[in-house]
Amino acid sequence: MSNITKKVSWSSRPDESGAAGEGTPLLNGSEQPRHSRQVELAPNSLDYDNIENQLFLEEERRMSHMGFRCLEISRWVVCGLIGFLTGLIACFIDIAVEQLAGIKYQVVKENIEKFTEVGGLSISLILWAVLNSAIVMLGAIIVAFFEPIAAGSGIPQIKCYLNGVKIPRVVRLKTLVVKVCGVICSVVGGLAVGKEGPMIHSGAVVAAGVSQGRSTSLKRDFKIFEYFRRDTEKRDFVSAGAAAGVSAAFGAPVGGVLFSLEEGASFWNQMLTWRIFFASMISTFTLNFFLSIYHKNPGDLSNPGLINFGRFETDVRNISIQMSSFNRHATVLLRYVHRPCLQVMEAMLVAAVTATVSFTMIYFSNDCQPLGPEHTEEYPLQLFCADGEYNSMATAFFNTPERSVRSLFHNQPGTYNPLTLGLFTLTYFFLACWTYGLSVSAGVFIPSLLIGAAWGRLCGILLASLTSSSSIWADPGKYALIGAAAQLGGIVRMTLSLTVIMVEATGNVTYGLPIMLVLMTAKIVGDYFQEGLYDIHIKLQSVPFLHWEAPATSHWLTARSVMSSPVTCLNRLEKVGTIVDILSNTSTNHNGFPVVELVTENDEGGNVGPAKLCGLILRSQLIVLLKHKVFVELARSRLTHRKLQLKDFRDAYPRFPPIQSIHVSQDERECMMDLREFMNPTPYTVPQDTSLPRVFKLFRALGLRHLVVVDDENRVIGLVTRKDLARYHLGKHGLEELQLAQT
Amino acid sequence: MSNITKKVSWSSRPDESGAAGEGTPLLNGSEQPRHSRQVELAPNSLDYDNIENQLFLEEERRMSHMGFRCLEISRWVVCGLIGFLTGLIACFIDIAVEQLAGIKYQVVKENIEKFTEVGGLSISLILWAVLNSAIVMLGAIIVAFFEPIAAGSGIPQIKCYLNGVKIPRVVRLKTLVVKVCGVICSVVGGLAVGKEGPMIHSGAVVAAGVSQGRSTSLKRDFKIFEYFRRDTEKRDFVSAGAAAGVSAAFGAPVGGVLFSLEEGASFWNQMLTWRIFFASMISTFTLNFFLSIYHKNPGDLSNPGLINFGRFETDVRNISIQMSSFNRHATVLLRYVHRPCLQVMEAMLVAAVTATVSFTMIYFSNDCQPLGPEHTEEYPLQLFCADGEYNSMATAFFNTPERSVRSLFHNQPGTYNPLTLGLFTLTYFFLACWTYGLSVSAGVFIPSLLIGAAWGRLCGILLASLTSSSSIWADPGKYALIGAAAQLGGIVRMTLSLTVIMVEATGNVTYGLPIMLVLMTAKIVGDYFQEGLYDIHIKLQSVPFLHWEAPATSHWLTARSVMSSPVTCLNRLEKVGTIVDILSNTSTNHNGFPVVELVTENDEGGNVGPAKLCGLILRSQLIVLLKHKVFVELARSRLTHRKLQLKDFRDAYPRFPPIQSIHVSQDERECMMDLREFMNPTPYTVPQDTSLPRVFKLFRALGLRHLVVVDDENRVIGLVTRKDLARYHLGKHGLEELQLAQT
Repeated sequence: MSNITKKVSWSSRPDESGAAGEGTPLLNGSEQPRHSRQVELAPNSLDYDNIENQLFLEEERRMSHMGFRCLEISRWVVCGLIGFLTGLIACFIDIAVEQLAGIKYQVVKENIEKFTEVGGLSISLILWAVLNSAIVMLGAIIVAFFEPIAAGSGIPQIKCYLNGVKIPRVVRLKTLVVKVCGVICSVVGGLAVGKEGPMIHSGAVVAAGVSQGRSTSLKRDFKIFEYFRRDTEKRDFVSAGAAAGVSAAFGAPVGGVLFSLEEGASFWNQMLTWRIFFASMISTFTLNFFLSIYHKNPGDLSNPGLINFGRFETDVRNISIQMSSFNRHATVLLRYVHRPCLQVMEAMLVAAVTATVSFTMIYFSNDCQPLGPEHTEEYPLQLFCADGEYNSMATAFFNTPERSVRSLFHNQPGTYNPLTLGLFTLTYFFLACWTYGLSVSAGVFIPSLLIGAAWGRLCGILLASLTSSSSIWADPGKYALIGAAAQLGGIVRMTLSLTVIMVEATGNVTYGLPIMLVLMTAKIVGDYFQEGLYDIHIKLQSVPFLHWEAPATSHWLTARSVMSSPVTCLNRLEKVGTIVDILSNTSTNHNGFPVVELVTENDEGGNVGPAKLCGLILRSQLIVLLKHKVFVELARSRLTHRKLQLKDFRDAYPRFPPIQSIHVSQDERECMMDLREFMNPTPYTVPQDTSLPRVFKLFRALGLRHLVVVDDENRVIGLVTRKDLARYHLGKHGLEELQLAQT
Repeated sequence: MSNITKKVSWSSRPDESGAAGEGTPLLNGSEQPRHSRQVELAPNSLDYDNIENQLFLEEERRMSHMGFRCLEISRWVVCGLIGFLTGLIACFIDIAVEQLAGIKYQVVKENIEKFTEVGGLSISLILWAVLNSAIVMLGAIIVAFFEPIAAGSGIPQIKCYLNGVKIPRVVRLKTLVVKVCGVICSVVGGLAVGKEGPMIHSGAVVAAGVSQGRSTSLKRDFKIFEYFRRDTEKRDFVSAGAAAGVSAAFGAPVGGVLFSLEEGASFWNQMLTWRIFFASMISTFTLNFFLSIYHKNPGDLSNPGLINFGRFETDVRNISIQMSSFNRHATVLLRYVHRPCLQVMEAMLVAAVTATVSFTMIYFSNDCQPLGPEHTEEYPLQLFCADGEYNSMATAFFNTPERSVRSLFHNQPGTYNPLTLGLFTLTYFFLACWTYGLSVSAGVFIPSLLIGAAWGRLCGILLASLTSSSSIWADPGKYALIGAAAQLGGIVRMTLSLTVIMVEATGNVTYGLPIMLVLMTAKIVGDYFQEGLYDIHIKLQSVPFLHWEAPATSHWLTARSVMSSPVTCLNRLEKVGTIVDILSNTSTNHNGFPVVELVTENDEGGNVGPAKLCGLILRSQLIVLLKHKVFVELARSRLTHRKLQLKDFRDAYPRFPPIQSIHVSQDERECMMDLREFMNPTPYTVPQDTSLPRVFKLFRALGLRHLVVVDDENRVIGLVTRKDLARYHLGKHGLEELQLAQT
């Protein structure tokens, strides 16, 4: 029996791919792919399609009605657990930040007060800068040396995960621990960052951990939830975790659900959504419950969320759309300092500079405000103000950003003078931009809100003075809210979920329409200049991110022109040696192999044409098969050989060993492997003339990883993967082709 | 050239279908299909899949980047319009009901007051009953004689539409007019109904009308939005319309979006969702704006929605889960009185009985309450109470249901005595059940809420007395809220969107978790006994409704065992006579025909096997082709013959003429039709061994109407349609097979 393994020439780098050169018509825009930097750890595609092989079908058929019901119940239990744990983590972060920041500000405040009268405030400045630097150093060290993936907010990574691309190490326990400690340090260290973004990442990690019923890092297997050990189920739970994270961060359970759906799930499933909502609800209420105990007011559940804007009670009357045209988008300085030591040093530098700039601003400001009885500032600095007054600039700088936002929203008109706000906006904007590129765990939500609130309030004050202080225009807090929405929308560009998050966080649906209009305007204006911050990030990592629809003008592309071809196919009965060679070939890092039928008629001839498709098998499955030596000859000789079960695949999930670690002797190379039982016998296929939008829709709606292209006699002629579809993108000059990382 | 049209034997009634008998293993449950009543007007399936034929692709390829942008903008404009018009309609209904009911109650109240002292209250009773009957008669007449489909809330029909099944006449202008007038009459006539359900239907009709840029009923074509004249686009807009309807009815824009998604869209598309949200927002705010003008308080936009529960301000502390186990599900008396006259008579009878019962209850009640200065009752009846007091039973009965609900939620503890509430709950429950089956336009939301609120408050009062009036348990209004949620949840079973609607309508996210838990419990308990009200309705009409997932235990069914077979196929070049015969065959009412290639090898032999699939064509397309006489011979002879364009198909959409109205002469019957240009060349296919859940997922995720089953050489062996999938359903005894209407 001759083995007609098809030519192995599906090139590893997309730029060398056969598909790109051959049949593709020239694309508009001679512009060359701009980002060719490959990430060190190649991202993996997730497979949202069940591998319905014989083993799977047998298991499903064996399972009773009751069994499915138990599964469904355990899904709910897992979601409840995810919500609970995410809420606990949010609670921990909140209390830790509040306690530590409290101590820090108390120390600095006492020091300043001591030196205000006797002079020598430079000592206070140094104290402040050193304190900040030390705390930030701690955070930067753990991130830079232990888990670099924990840097930033983690939202781009979670977006990728929900989209179907797994960035390595992103949902590990270690990442979670580093993230939580890192974000506490960053916030306490006084950087211009928030603690909300990282909550979303934390929720996702919790979900990925809990749902698997084991921790690979801790080498503990609780022998539960084994059914959930596959991409399909895990991705569902990670959606729930991300939603729980948003919910805990902003007290917005509905916003959380919409975030997950907006970013991830392309196939909307009712039961899944209910579970996600359940996780979100549990998360908000857990956080709330424990915080209410911490604040010695148990049972008062009316202030949900890590951030709370307080409730806007007054009617909106005239908060209007004229604000919405103000929009700016941060030109973020994305830097790549790669040496860990340098990263730590840079973080410390930024912390020190932040302290210095803040101090200078406060020092030279002479905006004194009377200290009211109902002031919301926790650490009012008197400095050079008269007794009973406080320095207004200090309320903005000498405070955690959350509190500053709330002050900007709710303080009485006249609390801030325009100059203070203008200066604050400018300096904070530049600090935030600089801070963003640091390798510390940090979120971008709060700084954006703060900057937006500051210039929003500034606009409100100016407008009020222009319109000769008519009482209707008098509340600058509303302008601050709208400004904050516009700024945040301009940066992150999530229209729907952000509207709901803002509405839920302000607790008043009346602001819904203005917020939505502002966010839409911000998105349109922003998109005209540049993509959103997270999308820039994702693009920089050249991840094959699939958008919602194929580019509008791509109807003239067909499956034939986008597919990778020729494809490495395997026979149903294949020689072990061939399989090992194909898997070991480092230049072709394929993950899916169509299984074809031996076409006996053509067997003799030299020119072996494409053969009939009869299934699809994954690299991970082949590796498990090799590891367990499921060879035809061995099965014959050792009759007692245990039959391979689905459990063996689940135990190996998700960290399948590399092919190099599997030893296959020379004798074994001559054995045969029978793939029939393990391959997916009914992979989705498309004819070669299918238009790109149609291929895209199928791929996206079903969350596929591989889509086989067949001719009209069901013979394999190509394979469409995520990168083949993600390449095409609508630029300013029409359709463009990007260069992407191999998955 | 011999025409090998395949055997036409795909039977019209599913029970005679070849597929059900042949390969299907015996299903569990010897139970025979229970509902065999066929609806008079056969429902049609919608096609959510674009027909990507040559014409379509050419048009798409011709269109520039700018063209697509304009399309996108016009989609937003249409959604804005939908929201605006839906808001206006809601506003009209609200004002009309308020004015007319005001007049009615004023007349009756004066009459009662007049006769209370002098005796002869039976005259008041007669006046009340006659007034009610007359108004209800009006509503029943227009519904029964002009548009029977406008009866009820219309929610089951909209659910079907969003699911992909079009009940005839459901989105016509006439239906809208009858619905709006009908619902005003029903509510003013004092029936136990609400005006919220019909708003959802109204929104959907508005959407279907506006998006098409013409009215077939009025024979006006505005020559705009022609691109949107196909199922795909129309269904998207109808989703937006339904969301706008919910949003206007409950002041819940997010709830509206979630309703549309929960019921309809299986493929979640970000842009679509944003548009739906936009329509919802515009709808709420339009309603709000005009109502605020009407209430002489322009600009006060803080009370959105037709129904407004008022804001629950106090903290929840202990509203807890103990309520959630109370749940009941209405055993609705579904009757089918088919003669229109009888329907009208019955509606009048119910109206009179409602008035009589209410009057009797009020008359015999001696629950007098002091008339506080801040009372929420608009028409307090003094009756036999002392001066400065009012009859408490009358606040519940002698009022529009919306107001009664609000009183139950917000009135001070002690406003109602338990006996009043108990009696009210009982009588109103039976009235509501009786009313539900009437052929008048009416919603079930408000009566459910009212009954739930009444027994919720009752429980609250009883619990308060048991726990010796500790102040924590003292507010029965919260129990009323939870009771209302439970009752409504038990009846309609929409967990997710209902939670959000309730939270938005109460304006306090703090109640989110308890409401959700109550709704979930209600759903679980309810599902144990019976399906939800809307689902019962849908089932009674034997509509092939697709649920979210295939039944869990259906993995052993394959595409081969569920498909309809053999299939009527057409050749690429087909004789006109054959096509006319196939279409005219009334026993087979097929809508989709696989187009196959002429297999020349088998041409000679007697036994013609299945031929290679090369496309799919729809009945509606064939009819347009026949109407325009697109025959090969004619094209040759008349060279100037205008080429058929996509516009011709769009103009015929959606009311394609029946085949009987198209005259084809004997000569023309001998002509040939070339289907290549018009067929969809790349229909989705599945191999015959694909498991049912896999087929289901593909079908549902892409919103297909026909899915071709092929063997491993791409030859057509069967066709899966909606009814083939909707037949299987998980009953108490395992998998059951239902009998469904042909679509």
